[in-house]
Amino acid sequence: MSNRKADHIRINLAEDVSSSRTNGLEEYQFTHCALPEIDFQHIQTAQECFGRELALPILISSMTGGTDEAARINSDLAEVAQACGLAMGVGSQRVGLRDAKTQDSFRVRKIAPSILLFANIGAVQLNYGYQVDDCRRVVEMIEADALYLHLNPLQEALQPEGDTNFSGLLKKIEAVCRALAVPVFVKEVGWGISGQVAAQLARAGVSGIDVAGAGGTSWSEVEKHRMTDPIRAKVAGAFRGWGISTAASLVQVKESAPDLFLIASGGLRSGMDIAKCIALGALAGGLAGPFLKAIVQSQQTAMKLVEELSLELRVCMFAAGAQDIQSLQNTPLMKIDKGML
Amino acid sequence: MSNRKADHIRINLAEDVSSSRTNGLEEYQFTHCALPEIDFQHIQTAQECFGRELALPILISSMTGGTDEAARINSDLAEVAQACGLAMGVGSQRVGLRDAKTQDSFRVRKIAPSILLFANIGAVQLNYGYQVDDCRRVVEMIEADALYLHLNPLQEALQPEGDTNFSGLLKKIEAVCRALAVPVFVKEVGWGISGQVAAQLARAGVSGIDVAGAGGTSWSEVEKHRMTDPIRAKVAGAFRGWGISTAASLVQVKESAPDLFLIASGGLRSGMDIAKCIALGALAGGLAGPFLKAIVQSQQTAMKLVEELSLELRVCMFAAGAQDIQSLQNTPLMKIDKGML
Amino acid sequence: MSNRKADHIRINLAEDVSSSRTNGLEEYQFTHCALPEIDFQHIQTAQECFGRELALPILISSMTGGTDEAARINSDLAEVAQACGLAMGVGSQRVGLRDAKTQDSFRVRKIAPSILLFANIGAVQLNYGYQVDDCRRVVEMIEADALYLHLNPLQEALQPEGDTNFSGLLKKIEAVCRALAVPVFVKEVGWGISGQVAAQLARAGVSGIDVAGAGGTSWSEVEKHRMTDPIRAKVAGAFRGWGISTAASLVQVKESAPDLFLIASGGLRSGMDIAKCIALGALAGGLAGPFLKAIVQSQQTAMKLVEELSLELRVCMFAAGAQDIQSLQNTPLMKIDKGML
Amino acid sequence: MSNRKADHIRINLAEDVSSSRTNGLEEYQFTHCALPEIDFQHIQTAQECFGRELALPILISSMTGGTDEAARINSDLAEVAQACGLAMGVGSQRVGLRDAKTQDSFRVRKIAPSILLFANIGAVQLNYGYQVDDCRRVVEMIEADALYLHLNPLQEALQPEGDTNFSGLLKKIEAVCRALAVPVFVKEVGWGISGQVAAQLARAGVSGIDVAGAGGTSWSEVEKHRMTDPIRAKVAGAFRGWGISTAASLVQVKESAPDLFLIASGGLRSGMDIAKCIALGALAGGLAGPFLKAIVQSQQTAMKLVEELSLELRVCMFAAGAQDIQSLQNTPLMKIDKGML
Ligand SMILES: Cc1cc2nc3c(=O)[nH]c(=O)nc-3n(C[C@H](O)[C@H](O)[C@@H](O)COP(=O)(O)O)c2cc1C
Ligand SMILES: Cc1cc2nc3c(=O)[nH]c(=O)nc-3n(C[C@H](O)[C@H](O)[C@@H](O)COP(=O)(O)O)c2cc1C
Ligand SMILES: Cc1cc2nc3c(=O)[nH]c(=O)nc-3n(C[C@H](O)[C@H](O)[C@@H](O)COP(=O)(O)O)c2cc1C
Ligand SMILES: Cc1cc2nc3c(=O)[nH]c(=O)nc-3n(C[C@H](O)[C@H](O)[C@@H](O)COP(=O)(O)O)c2cc1C
Repeated sequence: MSNRKADHIRINLAEDVSSSRTNGLEEYQFTHCALPEIDFQHIQTAQECFGRELALPILISSMTGGTDEAARINSDLAEVAQACGLAMGVGSQRVGLRDAKTQDSFRVRKIAPSILLFANIGAVQLNYGYQVDDCRRVVEMIEADALYLHLNPLQEALQPEGDTNFSGLLKKIEAVCRALAVPVFVKEVGWGISGQVAAQLARAGVSGIDVAGAGGTSWSEVEKHRMTDPIRAKVAGAFRGWGISTAASLVQVKESAPDLFLIASGGLRSGMDIAKCIALGALAGGLAGPFLKAIVQSQQTAMKLVEELSLELRVCMFAAGAQDIQSLQNTPLMKIDKGML
Repeated sequence: MSNRKADHIRINLAEDVSSSRTNGLEEYQFTHCALPEIDFQHIQTAQECFGRELALPILISSMTGGTDEAARINSDLAEVAQACGLAMGVGSQRVGLRDAKTQDSFRVRKIAPSILLFANIGAVQLNYGYQVDDCRRVVEMIEADALYLHLNPLQEALQPEGDTNFSGLLKKIEAVCRALAVPVFVKEVGWGISGQVAAQLARAGVSGIDVAGAGGTSWSEVEKHRMTDPIRAKVAGAFRGWGISTAASLVQVKESAPDLFLIASGGLRSGMDIAKCIALGALAGGLAGPFLKAIVQSQQTAMKLVEELSLELRVCMFAAGAQDIQSLQNTPLMKIDKGML
Repeated sequence: MSNRKADHIRINLAEDVSSSRTNGLEEYQFTHCALPEIDFQHIQTAQECFGRELALPILISSMTGGTDEAARINSDLAEVAQACGLAMGVGSQRVGLRDAKTQDSFRVRKIAPSILLFANIGAVQLNYGYQVDDCRRVVEMIEADALYLHLNPLQEALQPEGDTNFSGLLKKIEAVCRALAVPVFVKEVGWGISGQVAAQLARAGVSGIDVAGAGGTSWSEVEKHRMTDPIRAKVAGAFRGWGISTAASLVQVKESAPDLFLIASGGLRSGMDIAKCIALGALAGGLAGPFLKAIVQSQQTAMKLVEELSLELRVCMFAAGAQDIQSLQNTPLMKIDKGML
Repeated sequence: MSNRKADHIRINLAEDVSSSRTNGLEEYQFTHCALPEIDFQHIQTAQECFGRELALPILISSMTGGTDEAARINSDLAEVAQACGLAMGVGSQRVGLRDAKTQDSFRVRKIAPSILLFANIGAVQLNYGYQVDDCRRVVEMIEADALYLHLNPLQEALQPEGDTNFSGLLKKIEAVCRALAVPVFVKEVGWGISGQVAAQLARAGVSGIDVAGAGGTSWSEVEKHRMTDPIRAKVAGAFRGWGISTAASLVQVKESAPDLFLIASGGLRSGMDIAKCIALGALAGGLAGPFLKAIVQSQQTAMKLVEELSLELRVCMFAAGAQDIQSLQNTPLMKIDKGML
């Protein structure tokens, strides 16, 4: 298991594991506002979220934990998050439940006392011996403000050792939502949440959804690189273009579950991407792969990434005539149909 | 004639004879289901068809017979079909009617006692001396469960020696349907069945249609490679993009003859292709070229092809949230207009 | 003038003077008919036109005359037309009116006693000293069955020496139509006739229109190669993509002048192109450039071109289920929107 | 500041600073008119504008001033404008307000006594100490017929030293319009004016709008080449495809502010581009980059550019059947949807 986690990091850094489809945001465009009637110096990117102040609508998406390398990555990222006012998630904490010695690798609260922090565990684990109480435990383990339950059926199905029994999960997610004191978010890991699933999750009582759509890191590609069986590897490769793009997923979820908090992730690579996601209804945009690649270089590299994202986001808001995040959420985008795929 | 059959096999193996258009299935996409509520282990691909159990919704399409090489190919394929629970068709049995010595090359029932087996003859032969009774005879010749009458007007028209009198065939097909005890299917050979022709065939009493649409093996290309006359070869080459794509044909036939059994073939190359065809209304997907190329390597190669198709199909069903074939048939696909051609 | 004519032939043979746009016919497709209920041997491509029997719906478009080379080209083409039962047009006969010695270069009636033959003169000449009577004279000069008045405003405007006064022409065309005993057709030379112009021409009393649309020989390109002034050459080059494509023009004209005879030309290069034009309402398809290139090789080359066009046309009719020209005119085409240009 | 102006000229000449999007005019096409009923010699491109005679609907767009090189460029361009009957604008005159010695570099009235001449200043300067009176002063400084207030929020935001306080500008523009005797135009500098901004400007009392849309010179690219900070340069680079294309902007502005005078600029490169802009509602088309590149060669080069634009425009009018500018404004264009971007 910690082997698998190490594999994932290694493959994500060494191989091209990007989806063969785009994040879909190129189909949406801001209309240039020649007369923004704003002072650029007064552009406001901060907002309050679940009692925390987000200086920027940016999330370092759930990635890792469980090994020494992971511990270092998590604490380095947490320092950046604290310094820049970002939200952050840790990787799946299942290993932390099974092996208490690994828990410290997830603990970043001391380093980042004021960030919005997400705990993380696979929803499917609720079918493999873990209980509602374990969900509470992963939150407490890291003093998180909210919990991410991730859904990754395709990733599990492609692994020979995968946990592939997804039956009856909705009821169990409902129980988690009822029992926990913190908000529960459900996320995918790179293939998106459909409108239909979003509606089911809303009825089950989740607080929010992170679409984690297609267009960025492709987990079928990551798993492909771990496979020894050539048939299985070929099948994994066939899913490189699978999934609902991040843009499409945002639109679907917004439409069928308008009252949920919405986070965007999956292939976001620029401040303009983040701005578009917010205009499509998200309160923040998450990046995983780019933060991983930056943080293994240095904290400074990660800080520069944040600086670039931030500047591009603010210029974009200015040229679109939006002074703050709420006004950006109300800025219409133009849809350009160019045929998906 | 047996020369022509040998040519066909040789050309199909040695030349690129693929259509210049796609099978059209790239215009259809499953919506990813992040919460399938299924146990992957319980995915069910089996179904009953005409009293036979199909373990997988896969057909080895009608190809050959009449020569020693063909006999070997047929029996090798039949063993694979039996082992994996596939359906299978043999090539045109006209030569078997004319020359009793060649009949054994079509007989695979002993090797494959429980498969769904299709006899095959060109419908146009009903205008060239063959009768309803000959249709019964080809079925009995191989103890088939059903009969394929193939329609290949374009292929015949391109051959200098072609049987090109297609007048009055519908009436004769009707007579065959009335007379035979087994179900009669009509199929094309790679240019598809239109909605209009499907409606005529439904009224004539056929049980099912195999669209055999454009996008895979192109018989104008195959015939092109047999031609010595350069003008004729150039004209054949002009039809490389002709025909109704497999996807378009499925949609048309489903719409205008909703009560017929529907089989998909023509350029299917993956488990995902098969899954899409089923979601478009087919009960199974047939492949010809890929099985030919595999079987001349070895039975093991063909078995691996089946294993790959099967795994990809099942992963696809899981990630689309469909537990069995019937549920897959009720899974909506998203249409992506990208302009055909 | 005869210099200009010689230039035109030379440039058409030596340079790539094709339009940068397509003839538009790739946006139209026949639906394959798997059950044509036709005997291919009985496919009928002949039809009667203005008292002449056209064995094939093919026209050798108006091209040349006035020089010795042109005389040879015309008589060679006429022999092919007579042998194959094609229609034919000669090039602009203005030089014949001015210089009686050149008239023989247009006279092909002895060589081709039974073909449908079109006389030709530029409509704009009616503003440059030529009269209704001259129109009658060009018809009589070659014992033509019909007259083509060509419209080529863009070509004239690009030439420094061009005849560019197109004012008041419609009235004069009307007078020609009223005065002549033979049918009067109006044609473009490669930029197409719009629906609006077609309606004007219909009211003026023309019998038919040859759209001569964009997609084949581009006369701005031809003229570009004759120019010494670099500015003028650059401007000419800017019009390589100008014009209404042959397909679009056919559709427009059919819609706004449904009672006119319709001939298609402009970039037709295959029997399938001709078949599509007929399905769009034309009674025949004309080719210029390809016949020119063939005939300067040999008559046999031109005959082979006809053989190829004819075979492809007939195979196309068969696979589309059309037994004769009239039935082909009633065969619907599928429109595939791929964005023009 | 004069350093910045010199940088701009240098970068515009040395680097590829074109937008990554097109001017959008390729999505609009004239319908060829085979029967224009016009004498090409009588095509009329002249019109009266604000008491000046424009021989051609062409504007040398606002570019420069303030340095010796700029003075030479302005006077050379003015001579061309006078000779050819074009309109002309000078670059931002802010430096002239601050430093009287630089004013001569903008003064071209003696050289070009009868041209339509536009003064120029950034609207944002009204937030940086400049007043309504300064606007009057820039007009008088060059004896202009009209004033351009340019809006360039994106350019300012990308510059570290940018004037980025755009708040409350609309009210101040309104005051300028009320106070000045000459017509006030608002223009962008290469990202276009939206319909919404156009409506605001119309209510504020401007006389006209120059859309200065995306598709030509990209000022984010120009500024990118001046940057030393790599993050800032990367962010600038991200805006290469930003903005409303010239065609889209024309359509939006015409729709929401139909009574304003409309000038087109941004990526116009040919007489056909200008013709299309006029058919979309503009009274003239402006070019900046191409005139800059020509004039640094020689006046003769710039004259040849005008000659080419003029000939192409007139041929275009003829082949579209439009005898004069007004008739060209009433000529419908066909919209070809090819997906923007
Ligand atoms: C190295 C790596 C590890 C990840 N591990 C997890 C995980 O443990 N739990 C989870 O919910 N998502 C995980 N993800 C998915 C991301 O959280 C996120 O959902 C995904 O969309 C990020 O896309 P991007 O890499 O294209 O920015 C991981 C992503 C990466 C790149
Ligand atoms: C080598 C070969 C021989 C074939 N022979 C026949 C035949 O005898 N009768 C028939 O109905 N179809 C025949 N077909 C067509 C296939 O049965 C099927 O209709 C076609 O669509 C398979 O397409 P694919 O090769 O792209 O999978 C043949 C195909 C191949 C490749
Ligand atoms: C060499 C050559 C000469 C032509 N001369 C004439 C002519 O004199 N009169 C005329 O009406 N059209 C003339 N045309 C135009 C053709 O008749 C026809 O309208 C045009 O559409 C043929 O297109 P294609 O070359 O793409 O087949 C000429 C075409 C060519 C190639
Ligand atoms: C070198 C250069 C300098 C410019 N300076 C100004 C300026 O000072 N004020 C202004 O309003 N626009 C300025 N512009 C923008 C043009 O006036 C015009 O708006 C723009 O659309 C021209 O596009 P084009 O270069 O693609 O033809 C400048 C353009 C260039 C190329």
